[in-house]
Amino acid sequence: MLSVDEALARVLKGLAPLGTERVLIGQAHGRVLAEDLAARLTQPPFDASAMDGYAVRAADVAALPATLKVVGESAAGAGFRGRLERGEAVRIFTGAPVPDGADTIVIQEDAEAAGNGVVVKHAVPGQHIRPRGQDFKEGEVLLRAGTRLNPRALMLAASMNHAELTVRRKPKVAILATGDEVASPGTVLGADQIVSSVPYGLAALIEAQGGEVVLLGIAKDDPESIVTLARTGGGADILVTIGGASVGEHDLVVETLRGEGLDLAFAKVAMRPGKPTFFGRLGEQRLLGVPGNPVSALVCGYVFLVPMLHALLGLTVDDRPLPLAVLGEDLEANGPRQHYMRATSSWREDGERVVRALPSQDSSLVAAFAEADCLIVRPPHAPPAPKGARVKIIPLKA
Amino acid sequence: MLSVDEALARVLKGLAPLGTERVLIGQAHGRVLAEDLAARLTQPPFDASAMDGYAVRAADVAALPATLKVVGESAAGAGFRGRLERGEAVRIFTGAPVPDGADTIVIQEDAEAAGNGVVVKHAVPGQHIRPRGQDFKEGEVLLRAGTRLNPRALMLAASMNHAELTVRRKPKVAILATGDEVASPGTVLGADQIVSSVPYGLAALIEAQGGEVVLLGIAKDDPESIVTLARTGGGADILVTIGGASVGEHDLVVETLRGEGLDLAFAKVAMRPGKPTFFGRLGEQRLLGVPGNPVSALVCGYVFLVPMLHALLGLTVDDRPLPLAVLGEDLEANGPRQHYMRATSSWREDGERVVRALPSQDSSLVAAFAEADCLIVRPPHAPPAPKGARVKIIPLKA
Repeated sequence: MLSVDEALARVLKGLAPLGTERVLIGQAHGRVLAEDLAARLTQPPFDASAMDGYAVRAADVAALPATLKVVGESAAGAGFRGRLERGEAVRIFTGAPVPDGADTIVIQEDAEAAGNGVVVKHAVPGQHIRPRGQDFKEGEVLLRAGTRLNPRALMLAASMNHAELTVRRKPKVAILATGDEVASPGTVLGADQIVSSVPYGLAALIEAQGGEVVLLGIAKDDPESIVTLARTGGGADILVTIGGASVGEHDLVVETLRGEGLDLAFAKVAMRPGKPTFFGRLGEQRLLGVPGNPVSALVCGYVFLVPMLHALLGLTVDDRPLPLAVLGEDLEANGPRQHYMRATSSWREDGERVVRALPSQDSSLVAAFAEADCLIVRPPHAPPAPKGARVKIIPLKA
Repeated sequence: MLSVDEALARVLKGLAPLGTERVLIGQAHGRVLAEDLAARLTQPPFDASAMDGYAVRAADVAALPATLKVVGESAAGAGFRGRLERGEAVRIFTGAPVPDGADTIVIQEDAEAAGNGVVVKHAVPGQHIRPRGQDFKEGEVLLRAGTRLNPRALMLAASMNHAELTVRRKPKVAILATGDEVASPGTVLGADQIVSSVPYGLAALIEAQGGEVVLLGIAKDDPESIVTLARTGGGADILVTIGGASVGEHDLVVETLRGEGLDLAFAKVAMRPGKPTFFGRLGEQRLLGVPGNPVSALVCGYVFLVPMLHALLGLTVDDRPLPLAVLGEDLEANGPRQHYMRATSSWREDGERVVRALPSQDSSLVAAFAEADCLIVRPPHAPPAPKGARVKIIPLKA
């Protein structure tokens, strides 16, 4: 059976970043920058005071205390236009331009106003000046294409004097549930019916990554119903089907979509849960088929769909390895499939994350999955792991 | 000077969760649940097969191999309506109801179809049946008020047969920049002007927490301008002002808003950066005044604004302590103010996060802040900390 790594390589093969669009900086949060961004100005644009106080000449405060004549003030937005001469000081505020002739800032706690003058009690030559361009210089590239725009990146982009940014278009994902037995939430259920829940979990996962979701509804277990709804989602970058993919006789989705031109890349993965996952291309569209079981489906979302979205967004790969955590209990040896064990965490006094696999790993337990806060990743044929061993985890925040 | 902990206690005092609203489950991602949510059904609603295979009577497969007559099938959504009698088997699929009379599932790999019958080669009495209610039972509360709705919680809520959820109203935050020298991004700047960048950083931070932002624009350094714009944001739960709060003579915001009824709780905090932060009440509205310096302003956002939003959302307090990381370099002793040091991380092979403070902690460096991925929290008067020591950090993801 195909390993997860091999399956993921096939899923990502040829998946190029989407086109771009311009958005206002106030609407760019969470979007992915699609261009290297260069500063449109130099910051600070002038030598600036780092403190409230007085701008002076170092030569005038070599001997202390020194009494200087206050000849004006320099505020942020209203600099002192003249030149500081010998024996003079200028009242100055944080961020304001240091006047010509001045080379030192005396902080106000070290000075005492006296009539038209100021008595300087302490000064360090050259201190408390932020040189022009200390933060950044015009033309300098400070944010790279592939960056997810978080609060600090957006603050920086604004500081660089950008009002609009070029970002990747949001990936569109159409979600198609299947199954005669599946009904929408909120309805009165027939005896053998179950509620459609996977679309809502996957939709939230996609939104958290910056994708756009189209819910296509629930197809009946017949080819016409599947084809009709799948075509409705034809404009999406990714079509996700739920269910209809195991080896039972009622698994129609793959066969039906072959008739639509599905070029299947794989139909089974050595993972647990999630074995019946399939993947292929429908023309330009990627098709990811996740199992009908909710826990399996969402695990496949974390393992396959999130990397697909990152590829479409051109997100710079976060090469940080999966984080490690300490086992709070022994784990048995693993079987032949990579196991994504639902687990909960606690934190030791020394800051270590201690993880315990849920007592039942039955993939039908949706309530237990909601209580888990990470997945322990157990490679195929992993030997038993004792309490205290370090294991790789996928944190489940979103 | 007021400690950060004391300041935060004053900020949060009396801050009660906002009102509620009903939203469709497909629009509830990231919202905070405002009610305990009970299951509207039992899951699975019947004893269900955990595998594809055959439903049999354990008594019939005590001696193996055993040949049984296949009398029908039970699929998800279409159960077998009869009762299984001695010597009979029913073809069954994962998730389908176990027929009356059956008590064991034989997986298909252990059975061989033969005409109208099946030869069972291996069976374990009682195996591969998910008992009714194994996941959850009708009436059981599975999601608590105060839960942030992530993909797994939403999948569970749908599984519980909820089509709508009661969530907290989004906190509204109005942001008012101030300063004669401050100009909107994208404009041609005058000699002494600087770009308004803080509103875009704070807006993203607020959105990431599930708040709604109103950008009020930039007030001039005169009382009328400040009052006019502040009143425009009168309907917000929180008014954030930027700048105009240090001890310089040009700091008008506090005095101006006193005239509007500002009841000031504090105007200085023993933190670095962020000392000139102020906080008070304007009637029902909370007023948070952050420094004009971008780095200081956003640090105050993480330290004060995020907890305020959590309180308004009724978010269950995450009592996980701040995570720890290992110092990659020595740190000097800290001064009298709590220091939020901008730092970058790398990961050791053993999974430890290793943090290094940026070489310059000058709070005017916006570009460097964008490169940081955490803040090292140094308490007041902390002694020197050697390389390898563990320190508390605030991760900067959003």
